Amino acid sequence: MSGRLTVVGLGPGSAGQLTPDASVALEAADVVFGYGPYLERVPNRVGQRRQRSDNREEIDRANRALAEAAEGAHVAVVSGGDPGVFAMAAAICEAIECGPGEWRELDVAIVPGITSMLAVAARVGAPLGHDFCALSLSDNLKPWSVVEQRLKAAASAGFAIGLYNPVSRSRPWQLDRAFELLRTHLPSSTPVVFGRAVGRADERVRVADLATASGSDADMSTCIIVGSAETRLIERPNRAALVYTPRSARAAST
Amino acid sequence: MSGRLTVVGLGPGSAGQLTPDASVALEAADVVFGYGPYLERVPNRVGQRRQRSDNREEIDRANRALAEAAEGAHVAVVSGGDPGVFAMAAAICEAIECGPGEWRELDVAIVPGITSMLAVAARVGAPLGHDFCALSLSDNLKPWSVVEQRLKAAASAGFAIGLYNPVSRSRPWQLDRAFELLRTHLPSSTPVVFGRAVGRADERVRVADLATASGSDADMSTCIIVGSAETRLIERPNRAALVYTPRSARAAST
Repeated sequence: MSGRLTVVGLGPGSAGQLTPDASVALEAADVVFGYGPYLERVPNRVGQRRQRSDNREEIDRANRALAEAAEGAHVAVVSGGDPGVFAMAAAICEAIECGPGEWRELDVAIVPGITSMLAVAARVGAPLGHDFCALSLSDNLKPWSVVEQRLKAAASAGFAIGLYNPVSRSRPWQLDRAFELLRTHLPSSTPVVFGRAVGRADERVRVADLATASGSDADMSTCIIVGSAETRLIERPNRAALVYTPRSARAAST
Repeated sequence: MSGRLTVVGLGPGSAGQLTPDASVALEAADVVFGYGPYLERVPNRVGQRRQRSDNREEIDRANRALAEAAEGAHVAVVSGGDPGVFAMAAAICEAIECGPGEWRELDVAIVPGITSMLAVAARVGAPLGHDFCALSLSDNLKPWSVVEQRLKAAASAGFAIGLYNPVSRSRPWQLDRAFELLRTHLPSSTPVVFGRAVGRADERVRVADLATASGSDADMSTCIIVGSAETRLIERPNRAALVYTPRSARAAST
């Protein structure tokens, strides 16, 4: 079987954050599958086809991409950020697991990218400078009770928290509920970073505290970092404060 | 104050994973500070100075880099992987917090990179395809009791776990103790990925299960991913199995 499928991470948004490996993989593809706004970031190449789909159609996109690779094409599937973080790499694996046996013979590769949590952190300092976790707030694929259980476990144990998929048209209340729950486990002064479209022209980064953090400050393009109890600000004259989590941690008081 | 300090993520090791933004930042520096093996990855530029130090001297390196920036130099400080993940960005913040007030006036920027956990994940499939955490096993900067508490919290709540700094000459037993503890919270079949020097010439990736995972499979250049209870293998004829964590999670049974 001569087909090949590469899942390519585009990074957070700017061309300066697209790795050379990702550029090479995109250049080599006969056809590129992806969510429309991600495909728009892929440099045009004569003769290369594009297959765009909605961002909720991940498994369908994975199945179509694998079918085309099985016919012999060199297929790229793109994800914003890193494809291994709440994105297409797991969808491709899932489709292979459930699909025809011949898909297991395909050459499948994954090209990592900078995931948005890391790009947001870099904008403000080092809020993920010690132990941290990444958590999707979407309850489309897991019960909300699991989200709450994980938020509680992460905050109580002292992890800084990167929140992905914080809000969507069909999930308007989840982020405020998450802040509410986190307020019962963390100091109200805990820094909360809202990073929207980092690396793109419409980037907006804002630092709040947990007491006043509001779901209305986020949209579908926002990644949020909630600090641990150790995370703090360094105020600077004429510059934005740095947000950072020290490399050392004390024994928990609880 | 005309000095500038940029903390630059070099990614896991190959030139193909160094972002264009990182290349530009390195090119612009008058002087580059870093741990020797990382400096060796920085392309040589005529007239650019190098300041190498041991990997345990992070705060000292940060202080010297900030002092030189405060004198007007364009300084780059390099980290392997992402500088915001158990690396130099937090050390620079710490040094600014404790240092002379004029350091707060410096132009400080951070250029993110691909952190090793994401590079290791990409090699085997999508083990971080759902909620996950990153945890440093070093008890130089936090009590071992905190490490154990966080391992337990993460495994019980269903996070896949990326383990950084798993072992060193002065910390020989911690990784085996971590596996032992995780065995009491996760199925013995849970996949464990050992990714050593990913992206470099001496790369070695091995997948074990939690029952047989051993600290002797890791060294200082290894990043380890322990799956959640949902993480599984997809066996493939004539190819390495894929390791992945499905995008959906069931309600926990506990």
